[in-house]
Amino acid sequence: MTPARGDHDARRTEVSMAVWRVLAERGFQGLTLRAVAAEMGASTGLLTHYFPSKRALLKHALDVLEQQAAERPRPAAERAGDAKGLAMLRAVLLDILPLDRENADGNRIWVSSWDVALADPELAAEHAERYRRARENMTRLVADAQRLGELPADRPAGDLAAAAQSFVLGLVVQALFAPQEFPPARQTELLDAYLAGLAAG
Amino acid sequence: MTPARGDHDARRTEVSMAVWRVLAERGFQGLTLRAVAAEMGASTGLLTHYFPSKRALLKHALDVLEQQAAERPRPAAERAGDAKGLAMLRAVLLDILPLDRENADGNRIWVSSWDVALADPELAAEHAERYRRARENMTRLVADAQRLGELPADRPAGDLAAAAQSFVLGLVVQALFAPQEFPPARQTELLDAYLAGLAAG
Repeated sequence: MTPARGDHDARRTEVSMAVWRVLAERGFQGLTLRAVAAEMGASTGLLTHYFPSKRALLKHALDVLEQQAAERPRPAAERAGDAKGLAMLRAVLLDILPLDRENADGNRIWVSSWDVALADPELAAEHAERYRRARENMTRLVADAQRLGELPADRPAGDLAAAAQSFVLGLVVQALFAPQEFPPARQTELLDAYLAGLAAG
Repeated sequence: MTPARGDHDARRTEVSMAVWRVLAERGFQGLTLRAVAAEMGASTGLLTHYFPSKRALLKHALDVLEQQAAERPRPAAERAGDAKGLAMLRAVLLDILPLDRENADGNRIWVSSWDVALADPELAAEHAERYRRARENMTRLVADAQRLGELPADRPAGDLAAAAQSFVLGLVVQALFAPQEFPPARQTELLDAYLAGLAAG
């Protein structure tokens, strides 16, 4: 007898949560069928039912990561409400930074995923597409800010967005490695100074 | 009879080169004793003589990475000669970017190393120290540029250096994932626009 659909979905959720906890603690480097099984108190045999290969486990982990990213809290964007242009761009960029523990955990897993993704052309393409979509969103906000006269219009919005995304991604990496040198207040100051520089043109 | 010192050193170099090739092809995710042994055409047993544990192999790989980074070509800094201030800061930042294949390989391994390093407090501290030293060097160049009047002096040199390092690290990540969207010319333009923004204050 195969398990009822509801049981199956519940078990999948349980597997996904165990994958997330292993990633948060050990990164992709530590993601093995054995580690996930141990986290669930289940057998490795059960896990091979879900993941016939290491690559299947990696692909699932990247899906879990994307889903968690989609659902993560966005306090700055919430505070910004229906603000437009530069204010919303600032909120979107702020919400990427590891300003609290939960976000730091999520970012740590993203940074960790770059190793796996760069080693596999298909996964690299998927990651590239995720960052391209994020840049598109930022490009729209930059274009709004340019229309509102908040950012100079003499550079393509796509270039400003790519530059802002680069700045924030690099700041994430620095802050993960040196949280004492990059406490939340300093991350915010650096971002604000960056945006002020863009605005000054 | 133990091998002569020269043999031992030659073998260590051979091991280090095999580690580097495995990293360039598969990242830290793919770095195993077995992969290094296969790359050398040697037995896994021989490798355990050098690396009693996976962690010992990782630590050695990070040392190899640091040594390769120290010895990598720096064409922009060479062209800059004994330039000072902003011109040398630009050269140092340009030489970090994946503007050619060899640099892209090196950067790909650095990015890949972040997963391993973040999972291990000691390795994370060593990586943090490497980035801190790089920031110190950039801070010195920023301070020179401020003295020369090339960069505004109203922000601490350390903040400008941290911001520039963030920008470049994030651009490296973007360019590795989307080399077609970030060809060398665009990377250089984005960096120049960034530095122009700093100079404009």
